[in-house]
Amino acid sequence: MNVVFRTVALVGKHQSPEVAESLLLLAAFLREQGIEVLLEESTAVAVGAQGYLAASYETLDQRADLAVILGGDGTLLNAARQLAESGVPLVGVNQGQLGFMTDIARETMLDSMRSILAGSYSREQRFLLDAEVVRQGARVFQALALNDVVVNKGDIGRLIELEVKVDGELIHVLRADGLIVSTPTGSTAYALSANGPILHPAVAGIAIVPLCPHALSYRPITISDSSIVDIRVLAPHEGRIHFDGQAHCDAQGDDVIRIRRARCALTLLHPPGYSYFAMLREKLHWSSTPRA
Amino acid sequence: MNVVFRTVALVGKHQSPEVAESLLLLAAFLREQGIEVLLEESTAVAVGAQGYLAASYETLDQRADLAVILGGDGTLLNAARQLAESGVPLVGVNQGQLGFMTDIARETMLDSMRSILAGSYSREQRFLLDAEVVRQGARVFQALALNDVVVNKGDIGRLIELEVKVDGELIHVLRADGLIVSTPTGSTAYALSANGPILHPAVAGIAIVPLCPHALSYRPITISDSSIVDIRVLAPHEGRIHFDGQAHCDAQGDDVIRIRRARCALTLLHPPGYSYFAMLREKLHWSSTPRA
Amino acid sequence: MNVVFRTVALVGKHQSPEVAESLLLLAAFLREQGIEVLLEESTAVAVGAQGYLAASYETLDQRADLAVILGGDGTLLNAARQLAESGVPLVGVNQGQLGFMTDIARETMLDSMRSILAGSYSREQRFLLDAEVVRQGARVFQALALNDVVVNKGDIGRLIELEVKVDGELIHVLRADGLIVSTPTGSTAYALSANGPILHPAVAGIAIVPLCPHALSYRPITISDSSIVDIRVLAPHEGRIHFDGQAHCDAQGDDVIRIRRARCALTLLHPPGYSYFAMLREKLHWSSTPRA
Amino acid sequence: MNVVFRTVALVGKHQSPEVAESLLLLAAFLREQGIEVLLEESTAVAVGAQGYLAASYETLDQRADLAVILGGDGTLLNAARQLAESGVPLVGVNQGQLGFMTDIARETMLDSMRSILAGSYSREQRFLLDAEVVRQGARVFQALALNDVVVNKGDIGRLIELEVKVDGELIHVLRADGLIVSTPTGSTAYALSANGPILHPAVAGIAIVPLCPHALSYRPITISDSSIVDIRVLAPHEGRIHFDGQAHCDAQGDDVIRIRRARCALTLLHPPGYSYFAMLREKLHWSSTPRA
Repeated sequence: MNVVFRTVALVGKHQSPEVAESLLLLAAFLREQGIEVLLEESTAVAVGAQGYLAASYETLDQRADLAVILGGDGTLLNAARQLAESGVPLVGVNQGQLGFMTDIARETMLDSMRSILAGSYSREQRFLLDAEVVRQGARVFQALALNDVVVNKGDIGRLIELEVKVDGELIHVLRADGLIVSTPTGSTAYALSANGPILHPAVAGIAIVPLCPHALSYRPITISDSSIVDIRVLAPHEGRIHFDGQAHCDAQGDDVIRIRRARCALTLLHPPGYSYFAMLREKLHWSSTPRA
Repeated sequence: MNVVFRTVALVGKHQSPEVAESLLLLAAFLREQGIEVLLEESTAVAVGAQGYLAASYETLDQRADLAVILGGDGTLLNAARQLAESGVPLVGVNQGQLGFMTDIARETMLDSMRSILAGSYSREQRFLLDAEVVRQGARVFQALALNDVVVNKGDIGRLIELEVKVDGELIHVLRADGLIVSTPTGSTAYALSANGPILHPAVAGIAIVPLCPHALSYRPITISDSSIVDIRVLAPHEGRIHFDGQAHCDAQGDDVIRIRRARCALTLLHPPGYSYFAMLREKLHWSSTPRA
Repeated sequence: MNVVFRTVALVGKHQSPEVAESLLLLAAFLREQGIEVLLEESTAVAVGAQGYLAASYETLDQRADLAVILGGDGTLLNAARQLAESGVPLVGVNQGQLGFMTDIARETMLDSMRSILAGSYSREQRFLLDAEVVRQGARVFQALALNDVVVNKGDIGRLIELEVKVDGELIHVLRADGLIVSTPTGSTAYALSANGPILHPAVAGIAIVPLCPHALSYRPITISDSSIVDIRVLAPHEGRIHFDGQAHCDAQGDDVIRIRRARCALTLLHPPGYSYFAMLREKLHWSSTPRA
Repeated sequence: MNVVFRTVALVGKHQSPEVAESLLLLAAFLREQGIEVLLEESTAVAVGAQGYLAASYETLDQRADLAVILGGDGTLLNAARQLAESGVPLVGVNQGQLGFMTDIARETMLDSMRSILAGSYSREQRFLLDAEVVRQGARVFQALALNDVVVNKGDIGRLIELEVKVDGELIHVLRADGLIVSTPTGSTAYALSANGPILHPAVAGIAIVPLCPHALSYRPITISDSSIVDIRVLAPHEGRIHFDGQAHCDAQGDDVIRIRRARCALTLLHPPGYSYFAMLREKLHWSSTPRA
């Protein structure tokens, strides 16, 4: 038995005329199918409401059966953190360049949507990280991340010193530019640039990836996703904390950033024919054929 | 309620006078405790039976409640493959240099054994890989590996061409010196030298690590341990297959090496105070203190 | 004042019908210009002499003013070692896939050759390595290499132990799969797969690149090209030595492989418009434009 | 014939009581030998003048025959940039932890100095980088660096986009956290943490090392030290520029950072027995003996 998508939310990358065009095309198509269309509030401001209902993320959380994100992985990351707790499934449509998560091409968007609406899709769960910043015993910040939580030296100085523990047990004291804590989803994003491991989404692991570690034997380590990571900024060092590279806060000396798997998870829907490895091959220029 | 270890098997590195000395010391200690001591057959040949019962691995499988391995990780690897299917738990005693698995120092061996015999230990499961070589539809070789299965170019030529699939889905066609398929246990062994990821033993993942890949964007990828990896040697290439670097066989063109998590697992016992991360810090020279 | 190319040698990749076709087209073109054409002996056997003079490398050394290599970088490597001492300049024509050294495309071959014959080209020097194997004080093998000299574990065992000295001073004792000693030319070949540094051809340096070193802090090191590298195979280890991956010999325990810059150098001619970095960008998929 | 060191300047790490103690010990020793001692101005403020002459770097430039730096590599870097144009040779004394350049141990300081004063030392030249920031055709900043010039994203955003040219020829457009341009001296400092190549001080090369490049095939490249590197910050990106991690300035969109080998060079003196590779082995934990 298929879920029926009666109400679909549309979220688009701002300031992109191509996105606006795709978005209105998709909205019209959905309305034709008798589906109620909701435009995410700031998307509506950007493209003009055009007769569709504009709604805050709070409203989308409650009313949408499905959210379609038009843009790049950055747009999807942002929407995912907003919608994760509601359980609304997401579909990603890219605008020309294949994304790691926005895997539907603009050209085939309507066909893919038709399949998905007809119940023909694969469903994938992606876990998020829940991070809190603890200062002198009190939580001063909290955020979700679908890709990664990064603690770095900010703009000051040349390195930061971090004490890293897993489930209360010391891993190491690190002198580095910073540290990335990444989900499997984030393992193909920033963490990969820092020589982190690629984790297939089905791996229940969290990658801990040092950024330019001072000592050469410091390597990324992947731990179980049931573990809790505590990162202490060793005073007098200070730093910055980044959530998916989109939300940020300062880290003072002796702050502890506590990171664990979030209780909520993101549901991604893929059209028929989707293959994680095929996507990876295309993004990373891996070969699918023996050399001529 | 504790398991009672009535019969303990001893396995030692051959041709090592230090190991022979430790082994006889330990055997005498165990006999004093009223424990039956079995010497693994070829160990007995190497050190002299000295009044203890020599037994084949088959007998150890059936009769031992515990096996103590004296030597390095290589000695333990070999014993683990022999004993894995029986479920006999292993304890590793190193001979001077801390091992990734032989974590008990020779100096504190008797104290550690006293604790373990008294039921004071932590227990850890490590999964093995089960690999078979399929040639024209028929299985021509099968072996277990606790660390890794390596397919490489052998001594011929400069590279090998491999087609790598996971659960029937293509990952990539690889031109490289070879490919390592590693357990979390093996992730700190050969795979680490090849820039593979460190996987904590609690991570249910298998690492696929290319050796000197021809194209620069080929990176290690970690998949779920419930997946099956198929590696096809693309003719006219040929190669060699290595299991824990200890057993070997030839790979012909079009051979498929099929690798999956073995049904059996190794049980390691650690004395009180054991910490995986403390061991890693010492082996990899990671720091436990802020810089002076 | 331009060099006049009166006699041109042609060397082609064997067993390639496309190469044969290009080669005969080029030979006819050269004859039309009044240039004497010599076919390298085994090339002549492969394509048929077709009325051209076949000549050994010895004869080419003495008579050719220019050699055109048709094939891939492997074909050019082989010819380069044969012709290096004569000083005959080389031009490389690829057969479809741009090479690091075979930078002229088949389609534009005649235009490029017309320019070069008219004196319009850039000239580049590439140094070679001169390696000798010393056993118990006596030289038992000697060879040139344009790319690299590799000492590895061959097919036996899991690692090799090497003592590496520069100008008589110890660098380190290395436990690894092997060691690559590479010229700038070779730095974009095998050494690059092993995480070695890219050295522009104008850098007077030799790269020493460990293959899967056992200890994580071993990194490639680049030394002056006026230095002499001595690699001792520490017994009981044995290994294999590879020159450009094309010539090979065994290495016994205590053998010393002594490597230095060869006295001779290869001269490469490039057609107008050649750019080393443009070639690198294309081969390594580096971007030349900001992201759209 | 030896240079006679009649006047020796002392420069010490500030706020370090151990350095102050060593410094006064050394000053007294030098005075005993009849040598005039100058204390660098801010060093004098930190330790107290104690009857020695305090002098600005300008004065040291003119009057000192030798400068002894007490502290870590950071202290030496700073002094080197100040003294480089004068040609005054430097000697580095560490305070407990061996430095890459501060290679004399505190304990053997007086013996080493006695040797050096007696003319028994080896002399080494290290080149510096001369960097200028060009904005709309005008130079807005200029600085020297002994280790490296780093252009990075500062605290804003997740990456920076840079166009990198060598001698006017495009290398690539880079999307990354930043870019390090390093001397051989700097190749064992920050660049090494970013996976850059180790360049022996005798190599006449400049390393260009991307920091967390977005695309996986971007690798460090080493060019001749006679080349000029131009890095353009592609608007709307902005960034920060760092010289030896000690001096900093902002980079606006379209700024060009032009980097070349400085005309001046640093002269380092080493006591008898100094070995670059021995220092490297100790710093990087490389082995000097076969495994037991």
